[in-house]
Amino acid sequence: MTATKVGIIGASGYTGLELIKILINHPFFEITYVATSSGGLKLDAMHPSLKDVFTCRVEKADSNEIIKRCDLVFLALPHQASMGFAKDLLNQGVKVVDLSADYRLDLETYEKHYCEHSDKEHLAQAVYGLPELYREEIKKSSLVANPGCYPTASILALVPFTPYINEDFPIFIDAKSGVTGAGKKSNDLSHYVNINENIFAYKVLSHRHEPEIKEKLLKFSSKNFDVNFVPHLIPATRGELIDAYMLITEDINPLEILKEFYKDELFVRIFDGPVDIKSCAGTNFCDIYAQVKGKKLYVNSAVDNILRGSSSQAVANANLMCGYDEHTALPTIAYVP
Amino acid sequence: MTATKVGIIGASGYTGLELIKILINHPFFEITYVATSSGGLKLDAMHPSLKDVFTCRVEKADSNEIIKRCDLVFLALPHQASMGFAKDLLNQGVKVVDLSADYRLDLETYEKHYCEHSDKEHLAQAVYGLPELYREEIKKSSLVANPGCYPTASILALVPFTPYINEDFPIFIDAKSGVTGAGKKSNDLSHYVNINENIFAYKVLSHRHEPEIKEKLLKFSSKNFDVNFVPHLIPATRGELIDAYMLITEDINPLEILKEFYKDELFVRIFDGPVDIKSCAGTNFCDIYAQVKGKKLYVNSAVDNILRGSSSQAVANANLMCGYDEHTALPTIAYVP
Amino acid sequence: MTATKVGIIGASGYTGLELIKILINHPFFEITYVATSSGGLKLDAMHPSLKDVFTCRVEKADSNEIIKRCDLVFLALPHQASMGFAKDLLNQGVKVVDLSADYRLDLETYEKHYCEHSDKEHLAQAVYGLPELYREEIKKSSLVANPGCYPTASILALVPFTPYINEDFPIFIDAKSGVTGAGKKSNDLSHYVNINENIFAYKVLSHRHEPEIKEKLLKFSSKNFDVNFVPHLIPATRGELIDAYMLITEDINPLEILKEFYKDELFVRIFDGPVDIKSCAGTNFCDIYAQVKGKKLYVNSAVDNILRGSSSQAVANANLMCGYDEHTALPTIAYVP
Amino acid sequence: MTATKVGIIGASGYTGLELIKILINHPFFEITYVATSSGGLKLDAMHPSLKDVFTCRVEKADSNEIIKRCDLVFLALPHQASMGFAKDLLNQGVKVVDLSADYRLDLETYEKHYCEHSDKEHLAQAVYGLPELYREEIKKSSLVANPGCYPTASILALVPFTPYINEDFPIFIDAKSGVTGAGKKSNDLSHYVNINENIFAYKVLSHRHEPEIKEKLLKFSSKNFDVNFVPHLIPATRGELIDAYMLITEDINPLEILKEFYKDELFVRIFDGPVDIKSCAGTNFCDIYAQVKGKKLYVNSAVDNILRGSSSQAVANANLMCGYDEHTALPTIAYVP
Repeated sequence: MTATKVGIIGASGYTGLELIKILINHPFFEITYVATSSGGLKLDAMHPSLKDVFTCRVEKADSNEIIKRCDLVFLALPHQASMGFAKDLLNQGVKVVDLSADYRLDLETYEKHYCEHSDKEHLAQAVYGLPELYREEIKKSSLVANPGCYPTASILALVPFTPYINEDFPIFIDAKSGVTGAGKKSNDLSHYVNINENIFAYKVLSHRHEPEIKEKLLKFSSKNFDVNFVPHLIPATRGELIDAYMLITEDINPLEILKEFYKDELFVRIFDGPVDIKSCAGTNFCDIYAQVKGKKLYVNSAVDNILRGSSSQAVANANLMCGYDEHTALPTIAYVP
Repeated sequence: MTATKVGIIGASGYTGLELIKILINHPFFEITYVATSSGGLKLDAMHPSLKDVFTCRVEKADSNEIIKRCDLVFLALPHQASMGFAKDLLNQGVKVVDLSADYRLDLETYEKHYCEHSDKEHLAQAVYGLPELYREEIKKSSLVANPGCYPTASILALVPFTPYINEDFPIFIDAKSGVTGAGKKSNDLSHYVNINENIFAYKVLSHRHEPEIKEKLLKFSSKNFDVNFVPHLIPATRGELIDAYMLITEDINPLEILKEFYKDELFVRIFDGPVDIKSCAGTNFCDIYAQVKGKKLYVNSAVDNILRGSSSQAVANANLMCGYDEHTALPTIAYVP
Repeated sequence: MTATKVGIIGASGYTGLELIKILINHPFFEITYVATSSGGLKLDAMHPSLKDVFTCRVEKADSNEIIKRCDLVFLALPHQASMGFAKDLLNQGVKVVDLSADYRLDLETYEKHYCEHSDKEHLAQAVYGLPELYREEIKKSSLVANPGCYPTASILALVPFTPYINEDFPIFIDAKSGVTGAGKKSNDLSHYVNINENIFAYKVLSHRHEPEIKEKLLKFSSKNFDVNFVPHLIPATRGELIDAYMLITEDINPLEILKEFYKDELFVRIFDGPVDIKSCAGTNFCDIYAQVKGKKLYVNSAVDNILRGSSSQAVANANLMCGYDEHTALPTIAYVP
Repeated sequence: MTATKVGIIGASGYTGLELIKILINHPFFEITYVATSSGGLKLDAMHPSLKDVFTCRVEKADSNEIIKRCDLVFLALPHQASMGFAKDLLNQGVKVVDLSADYRLDLETYEKHYCEHSDKEHLAQAVYGLPELYREEIKKSSLVANPGCYPTASILALVPFTPYINEDFPIFIDAKSGVTGAGKKSNDLSHYVNINENIFAYKVLSHRHEPEIKEKLLKFSSKNFDVNFVPHLIPATRGELIDAYMLITEDINPLEILKEFYKDELFVRIFDGPVDIKSCAGTNFCDIYAQVKGKKLYVNSAVDNILRGSSSQAVANANLMCGYDEHTALPTIAYVP
């Protein structure tokens, strides 16, 4: 079998590195193009852990080159930068998995929370890359919008309960993320001294992942939930925990519902007690627990924010788009201890 | 002025050490008795940081000795052990600040969530030691039940809003605590490797501080809120963050309400943005922020769990009980950075 | 090809878990027996991260069963417990990779630093499992003593320089280890609060790895160096850093010496600047850097203490003992970020 | 008694904040001027932990203003910036404690390792601010050069042994520092993800504190030791550990030597086992331990890098310069746990 030639645009960040770490050992994908917006270094100079493992030239991203050398590209770029590249690539028949927000939302929602959209045509065709919900659509798509990390963990935890959640009451999501979620760029926020021995909320009720969760729950369930989202940074490198609080309309057994809903899914694990980030960090798993008290429902999920919340899910999508087994090369063994 | 002679029973734990650290420099209290359940070591052998600063014999706790040598004692003991000591001491005229749960709750609530109570007489007289709510009662009391760490941060954050909170919907409290909250005893939970790079909920909707918060809100406001409490352990030594979610019945300006409610309080600070634990760790402050979105109210508070959540609040209570300025010797300067 | 049947005795600890994580995906080894000294739980109950990945019964370790069901066993047991098992197994033709100290040292050194040895016969035949030094002997051996974590990182860093090191002056090794090096058992030492925001030396100039390093350098170089070893615990879960200080007898280019010495080795990487633990944590690599100033030599190395310092090196040894490519299934991609 | 009016120039960094934290409660110093190079914010906006504790305008540093408003200033500025201010202030009779390197070294050493010196006149008069060695000189000085953090911990640990250290062999110092040692400015080095779960050496055998240690040992002992210094960053906010290795010329009892040398010192503690950073973090203590093995001497010390290694030592110097008890307002109670 001929390998599928893949490119990674945005190789300097955390999600770019995670893509490379997975793709190095992928049996059907061959890395043929690695780029950043500025180019320059060799890959193992940029990521010293790759020394003597894998290296190549890091190019200055150039659509013409990508088209010549890639069947599929992963765009690990900031929003707005992504749509600039995606448009050309798609028009030339290159498949795209976009890790930014550019193709995740309906036009109106996108433009309200991000900026003007310059590729409305492809936006209309993009598939939201959550395999458990849109597996068949992803298989047929040439443009997959990889979900945000918080929406991945939140939506997977909530969708099984949408028939039972009381729409008249808000859903409150209290999320906690490791610092890789804030990106690799150095700033006061990510300074060691600011994060260590600390915890704090940020973008309270105004994070852009809030409308993403709301929109996807609406599309899936046709129920327009009032989603309220408060994220926190915690002193950890990777991993993300979701605690969601809501009311339900009838008595349910939440663990049975979860187990039934995900009974055929290899990358969702249902736990009988609260989940932690350590047991899933390093893997593509989304771990979920839920508990009911009267008419109150507590849902608790965990993912690795830069794997299931980004890069390993992106590879799952690429696998589907290229006709490979969805699970090919995806990490299942956690970094624990 | 003659110093008040104070004893610390339970000097080996974190709260015992914090009491000592404050009392060493207290101008009106003199430490005359330091004990643990087993006795033995010198204090600076037990707590090496005290070397060349302060030391004394650590005795095996003995009520007869306490009565002879102390005007007031701090009981930094596990629940059930506390009431064993408190009864005798109170009967002999020694004032007691109890840091355990033994005198915090109504009899029925206590016996439901802890164990049978063996000192019902004094339980009926105990004052709940939250100075902002019960200052005058504390001044006249000889038995103060020092609040739990989660209730301190939760109640101070919530009480200003009790007139506006919709009783027909639950209050959800998502709490995060540093590991000192789990005590000094070594076990699998507190093993470094289990906590580091991790976060998880525990005692979901079943922590004993849930009924404490509910009971105190009811006493204060005469409203029987449905309090739902989910605590988490985070990879930090000290500090505690509260995020509370609820509905309100009318439009309010939450920061104005907070600033008005606490305008005369020296140990509550109202912030204009989300609070963090680093800015209050090392102090007796409770820092609070709140935000409204439609009819939803988000309240966010932070304390040092072993100071405002335990030992420095205990000293505030002792100050009041002995007629001293409440703020004497209380720490105000955070450990930051 | 028929798989080699392997057993893991001591599956509950960190090194046991690391062995399992590697062996799950090993193409030639099949896990046929997993045991602890007490048995009981299922493997994924003991290690929740393995849920839905790999599980099996955890047996109470029994030599008769091992002999029936395994071609090779990994003994991830405390010293003294190991030799009890190894003796019987070897006599019955089962190959053994012992992760304890029981077969690492000459009889006299062992008994001086550990305890009486009860299997002197096999001790005399054991091969020290550092593939870079003893590859050919390991291939022919049925008993390999897997090196200690500190000796692995220290010896690999020092052996290339043994021709140049001044024997008349001591070698000082200042080592730093993550907390997994202290084992999974909970105690005051490993309590989160004791390790977090802290660093301290322990077993100063008296750690048992000191004679191990000295003996192996002597065997390799015939020079009896005065090795002085001071280990530290650092607030990190895994990883180990070595800083060694010594005098040399002539001018050398240390990086050239390292690159030449290890030019054919896939699992030693020579860096042009100081190494860190993050770039090798999660892998079987030993990363090395060295620098000279006059007649002073500084050597700096890093390993993952429970992989290259234990379990992945054990699998490398097992690969060699069974005639497989040494590198089969060994991890090369670091956990970074 | 009239308070001494003090200014802090460089209030935005970690050492500036620590100065303020100490001076707020100083009985004889009154903060009359707080400045940074750019000015602007209120102090509690710059350091939110000071909210409701202490605030003032933060001015743009201006020598004319300082001269009018201060008797003594602390310069918490980068080297080179400091000497620009110090010159004018000294000429106008303002006392200066300089926390930078500008007045620490002999001219030749300074210009070799830093830059050209523009205030040679005052450099010649500056006193090195290590009270244990230069107490009497400090009392008479109007310009004290506050020692570097590494030199403070290294010199205090080594000077008692200078009569016994073998000059013919090098002294190797392996140092470990919390991240506040690298300053408050955000960069790749101080990014949380780079520091967390990591440790690495930097500026190997080329850190500017190496010549400082060497020069001060020479001045004190008239022995020209070959000092070799390798610092590391560790995943901790504050604290610094020194491990020094050397040869001695005769048999000694190192703990007796230390106890005798520091028997009258209140801010040096001699421990009977290895020291840790947690027991001294938050204080002005330097904790020391030492051990001998044959002719090898191991010396181990710990300080809080931004207190004893900077700001609290600066206040000790200011106390001496102004005729107050050296220990006034210095912190002795560690932050532990």
